[in-house]
Amino acid sequence: MKQIRLGLVGAGVVGSNLLNLLDKKKAEIERLHQIQLQMHAIATRTPSKIAGLTKLSIGTDPLAVANDPNVDILIELMGGTTSALEVVQTALKNGKSVITANKALLSDYGDQIFQLAEEKGKFIGFEAAVAGSIPIIRSLRNGLAACDFEVVCGILNGTTNFILTKMEEENWDYEIALKKAQELGFAEADPTFDVEGIDAAHKISLLASLAFRNKISFRQLSVEGISKLKYIDITACKSLGYRIKLLGIAKKYENGILAKVHPTLIPLKHPLANVMNESNAVFYKSQEADAGMMTGKGAGGTPTASAVLSDIIYYGSKISEGSTKIERNFFPPAQVPTPENNRVRYYLRFSTIDRPGVLSEIARILGKNNISIASVQQKESESEPVNVIVVTHEAKEGDFQKSIQEIDDLKSLIKEKTVAIRLLEHL
Amino acid sequence: MKQIRLGLVGAGVVGSNLLNLLDKKKAEIERLHQIQLQMHAIATRTPSKIAGLTKLSIGTDPLAVANDPNVDILIELMGGTTSALEVVQTALKNGKSVITANKALLSDYGDQIFQLAEEKGKFIGFEAAVAGSIPIIRSLRNGLAACDFEVVCGILNGTTNFILTKMEEENWDYEIALKKAQELGFAEADPTFDVEGIDAAHKISLLASLAFRNKISFRQLSVEGISKLKYIDITACKSLGYRIKLLGIAKKYENGILAKVHPTLIPLKHPLANVMNESNAVFYKSQEADAGMMTGKGAGGTPTASAVLSDIIYYGSKISEGSTKIERNFFPPAQVPTPENNRVRYYLRFSTIDRPGVLSEIARILGKNNISIASVQQKESESEPVNVIVVTHEAKEGDFQKSIQEIDDLKSLIKEKTVAIRLLEHL
Repeated sequence: MKQIRLGLVGAGVVGSNLLNLLDKKKAEIERLHQIQLQMHAIATRTPSKIAGLTKLSIGTDPLAVANDPNVDILIELMGGTTSALEVVQTALKNGKSVITANKALLSDYGDQIFQLAEEKGKFIGFEAAVAGSIPIIRSLRNGLAACDFEVVCGILNGTTNFILTKMEEENWDYEIALKKAQELGFAEADPTFDVEGIDAAHKISLLASLAFRNKISFRQLSVEGISKLKYIDITACKSLGYRIKLLGIAKKYENGILAKVHPTLIPLKHPLANVMNESNAVFYKSQEADAGMMTGKGAGGTPTASAVLSDIIYYGSKISEGSTKIERNFFPPAQVPTPENNRVRYYLRFSTIDRPGVLSEIARILGKNNISIASVQQKESESEPVNVIVVTHEAKEGDFQKSIQEIDDLKSLIKEKTVAIRLLEHL
Repeated sequence: MKQIRLGLVGAGVVGSNLLNLLDKKKAEIERLHQIQLQMHAIATRTPSKIAGLTKLSIGTDPLAVANDPNVDILIELMGGTTSALEVVQTALKNGKSVITANKALLSDYGDQIFQLAEEKGKFIGFEAAVAGSIPIIRSLRNGLAACDFEVVCGILNGTTNFILTKMEEENWDYEIALKKAQELGFAEADPTFDVEGIDAAHKISLLASLAFRNKISFRQLSVEGISKLKYIDITACKSLGYRIKLLGIAKKYENGILAKVHPTLIPLKHPLANVMNESNAVFYKSQEADAGMMTGKGAGGTPTASAVLSDIIYYGSKISEGSTKIERNFFPPAQVPTPENNRVRYYLRFSTIDRPGVLSEIARILGKNNISIASVQQKESESEPVNVIVVTHEAKEGDFQKSIQEIDDLKSLIKEKTVAIRLLEHL
């Protein structure tokens, strides 16, 4: 039986769960997959934390693991992009395959890493980098390999989905829900990365590149987070038959592939609307297989470690067979269409002063820009600002941006920046 | 570039869609996967039907394809189990790998086929045999390879899910919905295979064997279909907060793995409850990845053909690399616990005569057998039988069977056989 020697850099929550899983499943993996997984070297910031989990002497220098000639696969669970990049590149240059859960690294430096891996004929596994335990990366590579995708989108960030769920269920405003998420360990002390949609953008750029076999650059994405949402937006949408979710979306148009991240009104009957708490989901539609969806835990120690281990088994098996066939990760860049002419629908919440004529002025500007109103709501209010909520019919994205700017410029009528949320396009 | 020579036996709806897909995607597959797929031989009952789809001379003898020394992979889309078994065995004996969508064949003769494939060191792909375009087989083999499953269950038969959806949405009784499904081509002229749960049983036995890495024999399953359900059951359950779905279920107990097929009351909030029309879904729960679900099209020409093609690409790539590592399909048999002591809940619909004392007699028998009632409903009725609907708390499976028998034996009070549907266990 072929031995596969592993090197682990970074042993926090995911790494220590991985050590546990490897231990627990060693015998079964040998029996089912005919490979012997052998942890050979570990480097982590605080070796004492995992002292009970291994008999190895644990180092603190990840480059030592990347340079260790006796390691076949380097498992990168350090996070961050500076040191991690050097470690991954060193490992590849030394002829190791790499498995990583680091979406930021792959989004920011995917070009260099994927190209180097192809040159060296080595594998890069990143099932754990997108949607945790949901096997979407493997499915895009294999199970769905015959599909021409029209759209791939999903709830890719557990923190924001947890916050949105709690805002609805507990009648909390954004700030309270965020605080609760931080207390429960679902959100970082600095939550920017999650709540502003950057993490979701990393993930959709990776997913979309694989699905469309064209590089979708993270830097080209338009990204909006959830920090501007108020409790009133959640309830108003619910009463209109929608739930707000932060979606990463990549869609094929005649002239290219447009990827973006933004809060989205999803009809309550759509399966994406019912993915709650910290769960993740990936929805796709293809010419061949029509619509499909996968849901599951998007983060957490064991779910993420289980995704890392599935990659170790997969690529370990390939290495044991002497496979030289490298999966494609490095694709030609996609054409990116300008969104101005896309036809979309919007939920608009205007924060206005309480005075006659405000609604007519808003309606006038929308009408002038070819935007017609599907529904309008204004509740009696004791204090300003008054919330005027409009759901529109389909109109051009560019016309919306223009209208919102014009309305926000009415400084005497509008008290706060207009909240504008797109409705889910026909999927 | 390595050429992979394909032989197709059976070119009905799925086969002809596969020929189309192969044609359309040939260039892309060569570019992305570095294999050249070449259809080399075809045999089908009515060659004229696919004359426009290929330049090959089409035969009618599937054994000729299985014996063709120039075929690397035999694709079996004939259906049935008699001729198909001989064809598949012949192909394997001749050193070919086999890809099939034939769940009945694998359920009935899996032992022989999988053992022969292992002996010969050949691949058997059957992604298309279970849940159509949902990549669940590949996921169980790879993406979820690190999971210890507690339960795998799903809506695995599109015909019955379509019928149940229409019964609810159109207020139809079972017979009318079945007729409509037949008109639309969703149900066969003889629908037994689908509506009595046999097709779902084939699929859950295949799924469960892979998930639990223990053979779950189709013959050991208890199987109930949907033909006894009435419109009143659909609406009564809906008003109680449930939707009825035909589930294939395989669950791990301390003393083994129990697999079965039966209609199930699913809370409306559970994601399985919202899989409608002809869609399929597979729900799973594992120690490592917690709960997850995959949904998609479970049948149809292109979705099924896309699953077949994903197998062709996967195993074609393996063959092109000279891989000799055969995936495990042949497992030691699972222990099968007796269900008598399992604690379950039931929806019970009693068809009674309209006379005082009936309910008290039913309640007495249930109570005597340690079954306590959670809710009871009886609507005013102008004619007999009167429907008395009881939802119970948890009790032993064996006590339910005993009670139902005792109640059905009250010939003077009970007009029709009691309809008994299990509630979804905690998943």
